[in-house]
Amino acid sequence: MSISFTDPTALSHEQLEEGTQFAPRFDASGLVTVVTIEASSKDVLMLAHMNAQALSLTLETGIAHYWSRSRGKIWKKGETSGELQEVVELRVDCDQDAIVLTVNQTGRGAACHTGRKSCFYRRAIVEDGAARLQDTGLPLLFDPKDVYAS
Amino acid sequence: MSISFTDPTALSHEQLEEGTQFAPRFDASGLVTVVTIEASSKDVLMLAHMNAQALSLTLETGIAHYWSRSRGKIWKKGETSGELQEVVELRVDCDQDAIVLTVNQTGRGAACHTGRKSCFYRRAIVEDGAARLQDTGLPLLFDPKDVYAS
Repeated sequence: MSISFTDPTALSHEQLEEGTQFAPRFDASGLVTVVTIEASSKDVLMLAHMNAQALSLTLETGIAHYWSRSRGKIWKKGETSGELQEVVELRVDCDQDAIVLTVNQTGRGAACHTGRKSCFYRRAIVEDGAARLQDTGLPLLFDPKDVYAS
Repeated sequence: MSISFTDPTALSHEQLEEGTQFAPRFDASGLVTVVTIEASSKDVLMLAHMNAQALSLTLETGIAHYWSRSRGKIWKKGETSGELQEVVELRVDCDQDAIVLTVNQTGRGAACHTGRKSCFYRRAIVEDGAARLQDTGLPLLFDPKDVYAS
């Protein structure tokens, strides 16, 4: 079984933005951008992409699936690390080309492959006309060397 | 004046992910994806894109600037509607191709061109193997016809 979506080109602007038909506007590579946030804290955990199959699997199973652009395949988040994401809510934006996925982050609570809770662990600051990054101090919840060792 | 960034191709994987050099990995179109969240509520307001100039202007001025893909030009958010976004923090992700921008949303508090606070005002639900959208009830804070009338 897979979930069926509406073809966005069949909808008017009004239907796309104000209607109840889910018509994801996949880009030229067949992807939509997904922002994943943690339900309890509302922290942004990561940004990733889904194709129609990943979106369908996510809605069907209640477990986040993405499309891995680097590996060119469906990516069940946490399949290797154990950090599965349970879907709480999936929202789409006004023009249906972006998704906010609210999840419970299971496992050790690390969504980032570096072992941190979130991929967004550094802030940019500007000094003397140049930007540099400053660590915000998110702890390592696992050691990537242990988790991703083959 | 414009802010200078590091060339990501000059960095090792370790420097890119754990270092203090800000080296945004702009895509083939010269863009990074930006998730904008409201400081007070942590609500996701919108998803947009920045090129190097928009990112530089945002850091320099403390007011969010994006690259409008539909109009093909720099987009000072709120220039037409009055809904400027004051930057509180700008974070980059592990591989430096995505940004989380935390802002104070000024004006009537509507980041979305539809007049709502957030672009993410509909959730997807699945019934009988088909997905449809359900309005989450975000109120209209302005009437787009008034704001964007020429």
